[in-house]
Amino acid sequence: MPALAPHPDRLLPADPAVRSIARRLYEAVATLPIVSPHGHVDPRMLRDDTPFADPASLFIKPDHYVTRLLHAAGVPLSSLLGDADPRSVWRLFCEHWHLFRGTPVRYWFESELSEIFGIASRPSADNADILYDQIEALLRSPSHRPQALLSRFGIDFLATTDDPSSDLADHAALRTLPTRVAPTFRPDRYLELGAPSWPSVVKELGGDVGSYAGYLAALEERRRHFVAHGAVSADHGHVDAGTTPLSPTEAGRIYRAALSSDITEAEAVAFRRHMMFEMARMSCDDGLVMTLHPGVYRNHHSESLARFGPDTGHDIPVAVEYTQALRPLLDRFGTHPGFHLVLFTVDPDVYSREIAPLAGFYPAVYAGAPWWFLDNPTEIRRYQRAVTETAGFGKLSGFIDDTRAFCSIPARHDMSRRLDAGHLAELVAAHRLAPDEAEELIIDLVSHQPRRVFKIS
Amino acid sequence: MPALAPHPDRLLPADPAVRSIARRLYEAVATLPIVSPHGHVDPRMLRDDTPFADPASLFIKPDHYVTRLLHAAGVPLSSLLGDADPRSVWRLFCEHWHLFRGTPVRYWFESELSEIFGIASRPSADNADILYDQIEALLRSPSHRPQALLSRFGIDFLATTDDPSSDLADHAALRTLPTRVAPTFRPDRYLELGAPSWPSVVKELGGDVGSYAGYLAALEERRRHFVAHGAVSADHGHVDAGTTPLSPTEAGRIYRAALSSDITEAEAVAFRRHMMFEMARMSCDDGLVMTLHPGVYRNHHSESLARFGPDTGHDIPVAVEYTQALRPLLDRFGTHPGFHLVLFTVDPDVYSREIAPLAGFYPAVYAGAPWWFLDNPTEIRRYQRAVTETAGFGKLSGFIDDTRAFCSIPARHDMSRRLDAGHLAELVAAHRLAPDEAEELIIDLVSHQPRRVFKIS
Amino acid sequence: MPALAPHPDRLLPADPAVRSIARRLYEAVATLPIVSPHGHVDPRMLRDDTPFADPASLFIKPDHYVTRLLHAAGVPLSSLLGDADPRSVWRLFCEHWHLFRGTPVRYWFESELSEIFGIASRPSADNADILYDQIEALLRSPSHRPQALLSRFGIDFLATTDDPSSDLADHAALRTLPTRVAPTFRPDRYLELGAPSWPSVVKELGGDVGSYAGYLAALEERRRHFVAHGAVSADHGHVDAGTTPLSPTEAGRIYRAALSSDITEAEAVAFRRHMMFEMARMSCDDGLVMTLHPGVYRNHHSESLARFGPDTGHDIPVAVEYTQALRPLLDRFGTHPGFHLVLFTVDPDVYSREIAPLAGFYPAVYAGAPWWFLDNPTEIRRYQRAVTETAGFGKLSGFIDDTRAFCSIPARHDMSRRLDAGHLAELVAAHRLAPDEAEELIIDLVSHQPRRVFKIS
Repeated sequence: MPALAPHPDRLLPADPAVRSIARRLYEAVATLPIVSPHGHVDPRMLRDDTPFADPASLFIKPDHYVTRLLHAAGVPLSSLLGDADPRSVWRLFCEHWHLFRGTPVRYWFESELSEIFGIASRPSADNADILYDQIEALLRSPSHRPQALLSRFGIDFLATTDDPSSDLADHAALRTLPTRVAPTFRPDRYLELGAPSWPSVVKELGGDVGSYAGYLAALEERRRHFVAHGAVSADHGHVDAGTTPLSPTEAGRIYRAALSSDITEAEAVAFRRHMMFEMARMSCDDGLVMTLHPGVYRNHHSESLARFGPDTGHDIPVAVEYTQALRPLLDRFGTHPGFHLVLFTVDPDVYSREIAPLAGFYPAVYAGAPWWFLDNPTEIRRYQRAVTETAGFGKLSGFIDDTRAFCSIPARHDMSRRLDAGHLAELVAAHRLAPDEAEELIIDLVSHQPRRVFKIS
Repeated sequence: MPALAPHPDRLLPADPAVRSIARRLYEAVATLPIVSPHGHVDPRMLRDDTPFADPASLFIKPDHYVTRLLHAAGVPLSSLLGDADPRSVWRLFCEHWHLFRGTPVRYWFESELSEIFGIASRPSADNADILYDQIEALLRSPSHRPQALLSRFGIDFLATTDDPSSDLADHAALRTLPTRVAPTFRPDRYLELGAPSWPSVVKELGGDVGSYAGYLAALEERRRHFVAHGAVSADHGHVDAGTTPLSPTEAGRIYRAALSSDITEAEAVAFRRHMMFEMARMSCDDGLVMTLHPGVYRNHHSESLARFGPDTGHDIPVAVEYTQALRPLLDRFGTHPGFHLVLFTVDPDVYSREIAPLAGFYPAVYAGAPWWFLDNPTEIRRYQRAVTETAGFGKLSGFIDDTRAFCSIPARHDMSRRLDAGHLAELVAAHRLAPDEAEELIIDLVSHQPRRVFKIS
Repeated sequence: MPALAPHPDRLLPADPAVRSIARRLYEAVATLPIVSPHGHVDPRMLRDDTPFADPASLFIKPDHYVTRLLHAAGVPLSSLLGDADPRSVWRLFCEHWHLFRGTPVRYWFESELSEIFGIASRPSADNADILYDQIEALLRSPSHRPQALLSRFGIDFLATTDDPSSDLADHAALRTLPTRVAPTFRPDRYLELGAPSWPSVVKELGGDVGSYAGYLAALEERRRHFVAHGAVSADHGHVDAGTTPLSPTEAGRIYRAALSSDITEAEAVAFRRHMMFEMARMSCDDGLVMTLHPGVYRNHHSESLARFGPDTGHDIPVAVEYTQALRPLLDRFGTHPGFHLVLFTVDPDVYSREIAPLAGFYPAVYAGAPWWFLDNPTEIRRYQRAVTETAGFGKLSGFIDDTRAFCSIPARHDMSRRLDAGHLAELVAAHRLAPDEAEELIIDLVSHQPRRVFKIS
């Protein structure tokens, strides 16, 4: 049975001299606490602290990185999601272990299986059932319940992603944990006035949403509620990055039309772009860091959406434009004291062409880690180089894991730390940085920078 | 006279430890048979098996990679193409040998001249005539006739590119060769209803093309003819990747208008996109692999087109969009059992942003090798990394040489094998793959993957 | 106090074998004279030869690469520009020295401070005043006056950027210097007919600009004046790369309308694109090399523009298209004997997709160094690889410093030479070039190529 033994030097540069610099840098941060300012862990899971049901529900079903690659190889989603038998799901995963070669999924699993579950052989059709039993047994033990793992993972700060209508009771209940679990304000669906369901959706906000002024007040009130419950950021994911404001009169007119579902697509787009401007204004007022991640075609495959719901692996990137789209927002708020705008992208071309130049001028702008490609070493390297050469290390966002897969959090942050170490080691080896500067920078990138960018005290 | 001696380690990574891994991987595949699922070799040349006329007609005139670089340096196309004296053409090439430094042309020629023609000194003005005579003498010998070279090159499978109206008699006559020479169905000109020549072109299809239904039936019939003659794929190269279907009524209306040359450009575009959808439907029915390579501005320089015809070096890439353009096709056929869609691109940005994510979800989609940049190590590396980190090794197309230059086929495949070995060696050196996995993968990439993707039995 | 000691091997590849090749190549060109065919040094400063006032006016205030990064970190532009006290400006720079880690600014300053001013410790809050005094003292000495530095820097050829209305008296007065200081014809503002100020601007051209014919004649006359004063190129920086010509009648109609400020935006754009075609025609006639650098959103932050003027760090790149935009110009002039068109871009994607393919066919086209990212090693590498693999070394423009920061010129060219050496060394190490070829190429790239491309005799 081939061994599963993550190498201590994995992901570090190959050249022996560079690797030894990288290893030293990595060691300086390998065990530092994790700061995770954006992700999708379910706060209720943490609150309830009930044991994870089985390996498939823990590792496979909630992770569309895993299921989409199985699907791409011909495994039907119906064998993987929904009611699919957990043991069969796990077997399918083990049988297809070779599919993940070269991908981040392989990296995460090697680390997780080995470090959290003590597994020492590669998954395969032959050992699938043995591994299943081994993991399932551990999941029943107190050491592997959600809160115990949260503590073992060394997570200092963990942001979830939440609907503005949430009462945030789960978060309130988690205040006694040593980890700070903070909600994130994610108002997308309240800002898309063209959706057929919007007139009923908007009522979930509470407050007097019968008028545009009342709607703004309701949003401001919900943001205050989030701030009071420890939120540090407001997250926005629409198809483009437009931020052109409307006059209050025009905004009010479109809002009223939308209430009676009498709105054109162009009006809905104009209103949503206007609201991005308004969201920036509110961020200037209440201090929530504004994060943007435009540019995906959501739910590309309609049958999969209909049968299995959203977030099942077919949100596909499209090209995106920032320089012109963000100009109204930045012209107005780009130098506002304390305003932070983190720009994520699914279009890696934009890092060198647009994001780094914007971050290299506007105090408000930070270059977010490469969303959608957060764990691809190639894109990480491209991001690191493009941003730091144009805007310096101080304008990076720090790593974002953006994950639903709870157990992969340490492996993802570990991957990022290794890639940071490699990047800095290359700069030292090329005499572009002094060794003492690289040591300072790696600690900064892992610990201080995400706290500074996301205002985590 | 400076020596021409291709180094055994050429193109392998420089770091000694990585190179030694790469060398071992390369050696495992260096002499495996060649599978060439897409190219432009003339089947008649193979059938007739008449000796090549001279070095210029063999190496220079049919290869626009060579002639365009000479033209870019100021050599008129009239000195290189058409009736230009072969010995003068060859001399121009040798005099300008320095122009090719750093380009794939240089790599191919080093390999070809050295390995096929035993030449041991760099081409130059001084030795041009000597080399010409040396090569010409060999071309007259039985060892260097087309079929002998085909066998010497170790080509197992060679696809040509053919007009749907072809009777494929050349292919039928080649059935006795040990190499399988298969036609490829390339219907572009029958689908561009806006071309002034279309009303007469469409008649070449045969069948009853006086109606839209008859036109579809004729295309289906020609595809069956190709399948019966061993075709494995249908190839499509239009300016964009649009695939939005029309209603049969609307398609029929436009078709009739086109027959009387009464069609707008917008209608022609809409019909062509509709036909891409129809071509996918037919591929689902008859099993031909569908390959797409949109995004070139064809024949950019009109004087060169008028004097020397198409394919003379001035097809220039433009940006291209896949995520939205392919959505109708993929939404309908992306999970159809057995349907294969190989996406090539001239816009390397699309690999990480769109193609790999599509290949990482849809079972039908494979990421084609980097067309236009097939032999540029930089773009090959970018392609390898972008695709495998997002979609895994199993969704690569395998190498495509896409060439008219018969003698360059082994050098091109050799280049690809060396770059695959380098890529895998880097993953092993970074402990991202185990050595046994890399050995399995390189054999897969060279031998099994192209056969699987192109359904070559 | 940490040392400031630029390493002799800085920026060279890390692998020891590759580095030793690179070092040898670098040494062959390290001290060759500088050819600077495009930049923004003020000719009056050279003519007057008055001592530089102080470190801030020399290093910080004129260099928006420095000020924008300070601004991005929260330092107000008002503390850096205009009347800001030079010693305070210098202190702010020294206090924020860490911001520049990983950026070219850091590289330039290390070289400049060490090599021109003999400074041996890293700038910091602690030593800011000491460094200020040390530099200021040197600036008063004859050895550090503009002409002395020009000579010490070993600059053979230095192009400035000038308004077509300039009498070029400064350049005439500089003819006695050993350095050839040449003007560059930069007519942008005369070609933008939609600008409110255009009707008065155009009068500055002189000649009879009351008619379109007179306007063309005036431009031709000013170009002749520049040629007579040693200009080698005409530089054009509009938002897109369009070159579609108008009929003389239509051009005349729009011109007349513009004289009375009665012009639409679409007409102004059409006229400007027409004039790019005309400028190419004039270049074919008078021999001025045509340089294009489209694709920036100028003055993105309106408050900074209003308070501090243009060129203050917020010109932000946008995506750009060349293949279709340049087609009219290239179809007409792309093979004109002696016509040179150098294409710069702020959109690095365009190198492999469009510029290299165009340069790889049209004799007129050269691939300009990566404008906006001229000093980012990552973008330089991407440019080098993309262009040379597709179009060969002969179609590179050679390095362009494009700078206002006089003292950074040697450091910038040194950076480029090191990156060229690294690129060539990698090709030698991969056995893609022979050592003798690399030695020939590096001298060519540094000395001959820019002279050939810019027709510098």
